[in-house]
Amino acid sequence: MSNYRSGDLSHYCASVFTAAGVAHERAHILAESMVHASLRGVESHGVSRTTIYLKRIAEGMINPNSELVIEQKSSSSALIDARNTIGQYASLKASELAAELASLHGIGCVGVRRSNHFGAASFYTIPLARRGFIAIAMSNAPTSMALWGAAKPYTGTNPLSYSVPAGKYEPVTLDMATSIVARGKIRRAWKQGETIPEGWAIDSDGNPTVDPEKALEGFVLPFGGVKGSAIALFIEILAGVLTGAAFGPSLGSMYNDFTKEQGLGHFFLAIDPGKFFPSDGFSRRMETMLEEIWALPASPGNERIFLPGEKEGLAEKERSLNGIPLEHDVEAELQDLGRRYEILFPKAIEN
Amino acid sequence: MSNYRSGDLSHYCASVFTAAGVAHERAHILAESMVHASLRGVESHGVSRTTIYLKRIAEGMINPNSELVIEQKSSSSALIDARNTIGQYASLKASELAAELASLHGIGCVGVRRSNHFGAASFYTIPLARRGFIAIAMSNAPTSMALWGAAKPYTGTNPLSYSVPAGKYEPVTLDMATSIVARGKIRRAWKQGETIPEGWAIDSDGNPTVDPEKALEGFVLPFGGVKGSAIALFIEILAGVLTGAAFGPSLGSMYNDFTKEQGLGHFFLAIDPGKFFPSDGFSRRMETMLEEIWALPASPGNERIFLPGEKEGLAEKERSLNGIPLEHDVEAELQDLGRRYEILFPKAIEN
Repeated sequence: MSNYRSGDLSHYCASVFTAAGVAHERAHILAESMVHASLRGVESHGVSRTTIYLKRIAEGMINPNSELVIEQKSSSSALIDARNTIGQYASLKASELAAELASLHGIGCVGVRRSNHFGAASFYTIPLARRGFIAIAMSNAPTSMALWGAAKPYTGTNPLSYSVPAGKYEPVTLDMATSIVARGKIRRAWKQGETIPEGWAIDSDGNPTVDPEKALEGFVLPFGGVKGSAIALFIEILAGVLTGAAFGPSLGSMYNDFTKEQGLGHFFLAIDPGKFFPSDGFSRRMETMLEEIWALPASPGNERIFLPGEKEGLAEKERSLNGIPLEHDVEAELQDLGRRYEILFPKAIEN
Repeated sequence: MSNYRSGDLSHYCASVFTAAGVAHERAHILAESMVHASLRGVESHGVSRTTIYLKRIAEGMINPNSELVIEQKSSSSALIDARNTIGQYASLKASELAAELASLHGIGCVGVRRSNHFGAASFYTIPLARRGFIAIAMSNAPTSMALWGAAKPYTGTNPLSYSVPAGKYEPVTLDMATSIVARGKIRRAWKQGETIPEGWAIDSDGNPTVDPEKALEGFVLPFGGVKGSAIALFIEILAGVLTGAAFGPSLGSMYNDFTKEQGLGHFFLAIDPGKFFPSDGFSRRMETMLEEIWALPASPGNERIFLPGEKEGLAEKERSLNGIPLEHDVEAELQDLGRRYEILFPKAIEN
């Protein structure tokens, strides 16, 4: 395990994507999205994803440089056809449009169809929260999760993020999969030859399993039982059905299907608290709430109460200073990708 | 246990509220909200709540007839000061305004502050879905639930509802508390002298309990662990912090505090799918999704897959035909309330 400067990794990944034919801005957005996740300790969506994105681009499954088309537009809503470009690029533009609509009209929402995997959802919500908006991002995902009462999967692990500005404190940020656990974590366990805890997943016959390979062939279960299942379904409706994207089993798998586009859909929403409160009234109230929560006694086994996104924010601070640790296999894989394009892998930070 | 016609119960409850000084329209909305819950089998929010609403009105803790004031307004958002009127009245008006904004601009949201308990959240979302909108309703609630990692409660069991139009099928409707279980269910168990399952709640010292009385003195836990906790917090932010309502421990208890207003906040959101799809494109896609899900094999122990709100919808159909069953104690309590105002309790349906 060696540590790398986030800026170096971002530059390296962007260079690899650019060499593979991705336009400059998009290559940088894609690289930044992965580094964002790596910095926040979300390795499952971190720079290790370079390989699969590059593979899909190389195999013609993503059209990295196609232009976005705004298909529908009203004062506060819009629908974008991403035309199978990079999910992160389409999503960043869509989320920025949602904020623009919100700043004009109080609230704005933008749907995206015909898109690809959009990485960590908080990559879109946190920047909007830093600009003062309450932001929501969600996406559907390839079929892998069984709805409540079903023996076969229908939705994916449909991610959901919100981020809320909190004055002098860091934005309060949720970024979660609607499964009990993200498939990325199962994938990591599989890569590292580890077993997974019982209850995370079921094999393709519907039996509980601790074998990550069988779990990846099978499916995961929603968080929070029947309630979480209903929330995952709602994300499928907003991100998939409302946007005109593919949904349910008609979505393409990122890892296992190199014969068709993924056809993913996303949904972004922004609210301008300034339309509810004059000046910084909302921020002051958020500060009060956070201080009240931090002052509560922690439950046994917890040193103190962490707000959503707080631990990830601390990881981001620490890794911005000390670098992003990469496992040797991720390191080797990344180096290998660069070699193809004669791009030099950055030096690790010396201890 | 006797069954009563929903129309009779609605008329009776409305008459009682009118006799207690509530203006005609508001009395009827309040009665309809409770009958809506009773019809859908959600007894915890059903006609049995007449007693507590009436008590708060009688004690001057609710100003039933005060006029709503729209405090802030932009094209797609609004903030309403409910001026301590009946929560159901303020909420119905707010949700209708959200739909009006959505029909004009694609999406609309309306916050409400200085309100009271708003009953079953689906009372607001289902009518909007029947008119073609995707609707969301949420409210904060008196402190009773511990956030993830906390030994003391902060938020309430903050309810969340969505309802989505589905063409020829009934709207897909979630109506949930963000606790593992609604406090109303614990209250019912207490009224009926039953114990509650372990894991639902913790007593005031933080110990697990199966005694509903101790659970009501203590607090409940969020659904879905750390993820559900973050969702409950987000509802507190949108319904409480953003609206200028009270939040966290500063909210007044409906049952235990007759010295101050509840100060609740709500948040309503509506999306017009017509702004994303021409004509009935969205409805057709929803029909396809529902048919795909119903066609999935059910997991062991389940006869078939039920979508969110489907069981409640079946209950509503059955009870619309055969009447709403009332326990004897609820029956007696309701009769007693009417006697005060010389209003005749309806006859039960004869078998």
